[in-house]
Amino acid sequence: MLSKKQISWINALKVKKYRKKQQAFIVEGEKNVAELLQSHFNIIAIYALESWTIKNKKICNLHQQTLHIISPKELKRISNLHTPNEVVAIVKLPTNDDTQKQISQALQQPLQHHVLALDDIRDPGNLGTIIRIADWFGINTLICSPTCVDAYSPKVVQATMGSIFHIQLIYNDLEQLFESNAKIPVYAALLQGKNIFDTDFSKKGIILMGNESQGINEKYFKYMSKAITIPRKGKAESLNVAVATSIICAIACK
Amino acid sequence: MLSKKQISWINALKVKKYRKKQQAFIVEGEKNVAELLQSHFNIIAIYALESWTIKNKKICNLHQQTLHIISPKELKRISNLHTPNEVVAIVKLPTNDDTQKQISQALQQPLQHHVLALDDIRDPGNLGTIIRIADWFGINTLICSPTCVDAYSPKVVQATMGSIFHIQLIYNDLEQLFESNAKIPVYAALLQGKNIFDTDFSKKGIILMGNESQGINEKYFKYMSKAITIPRKGKAESLNVAVATSIICAIACK
Repeated sequence: MLSKKQISWINALKVKKYRKKQQAFIVEGEKNVAELLQSHFNIIAIYALESWTIKNKKICNLHQQTLHIISPKELKRISNLHTPNEVVAIVKLPTNDDTQKQISQALQQPLQHHVLALDDIRDPGNLGTIIRIADWFGINTLICSPTCVDAYSPKVVQATMGSIFHIQLIYNDLEQLFESNAKIPVYAALLQGKNIFDTDFSKKGIILMGNESQGINEKYFKYMSKAITIPRKGKAESLNVAVATSIICAIACK
Repeated sequence: MLSKKQISWINALKVKKYRKKQQAFIVEGEKNVAELLQSHFNIIAIYALESWTIKNKKICNLHQQTLHIISPKELKRISNLHTPNEVVAIVKLPTNDDTQKQISQALQQPLQHHVLALDDIRDPGNLGTIIRIADWFGINTLICSPTCVDAYSPKVVQATMGSIFHIQLIYNDLEQLFESNAKIPVYAALLQGKNIFDTDFSKKGIILMGNESQGINEKYFKYMSKAITIPRKGKAESLNVAVATSIICAIACK
């Protein structure tokens, strides 16, 4: 049985301010929760229908302390989905305290994999899709500018389809990132640049993608090693940023 | 001044049944309308704010007969957008009468460009994004199975960002399509197949993409010339279908 207080505590986590305050975020749906359970993330609570607990007996034994069985009606009151799934988990937000340590570890040279840096991605669906793409192509580190949408919003988490639990995600000032890692090449996606099919991506580096409508902020141009572009054959004026990221990652990581 | 009757006539076009009945669809926003005005589509009516008419004097002279100046309040009553733009156009639906003629023209051999065939794409955002991708890569013909979402729904039109006016879009039974064009290679996107980077796409053919969760229907397998796949390097289980389409089109059309 969920108390009113619990329900409002959970629902508050839909708002970034309260996620920060309570240092927690919501994970919803079977696929996302399954990936969560296999990750190193700290689970604060699991709210599940009985149907889910029957299918996940082992997990329920392991998480007895945090598991709460709820009714479909209660689930509806805490869910973010039009058609609520069977399970909602509340998870501890990863701390950003040791960001610099994380970044220097992730950028230890020579890089084993490309790293993705995002400048000011605003749309939750785009960020979620990009996280899923990074995960598909084995890009383990994603560095977001502080103006990017919060990756722990329910919409982003949902769109990652569990991939948010596979990759390392860091919010950090990008200028500072480039300044401190001057030797790492920066491949910056622009509407005009070198054809990605003629670009040598063999030296692993940072792939930089820009905002949905403005592209990459000009202040980062001086850090670019290569401006790269997806050749256009038809008439469309632009590609969606998640689509462009997927094409560039496919070529760069092939 | 919009009458109640006009408003309900326009709003009915948000529903497929009424689009079919009235043989019309809605186009909204500056970018989409700008592309529409440069296309061969027949415009039934343009509803615009005065601010739009001032910026588009020449167009307004050309379309005097169909132009209606409306207030922001009226625009809000017919708009599909959270933040209504300055202009809404009502456009004649392309007839599907001569589909067979269109298809045989589009598939005249040897093909000059790849053709995209979609099996059962259900999400409007995905279809819109795929149309935009096809347009970027110079794929002029898109053949949708009859179970695909209607391309003339406001959400799809919006997501194409004007690209729907650049390409030829046909709804047709895919089995019949493959049967009648047996000499054209079919590149079918599956989770397991030949690595797209090792695939020879030099012979132009039909690129077949499947449903969001089920993939390509098995009944089409016998028509496949090549099963192709995007190599996975990380842990994500799948890629979104629009993302997968973009990567395959980028490689096939490079």
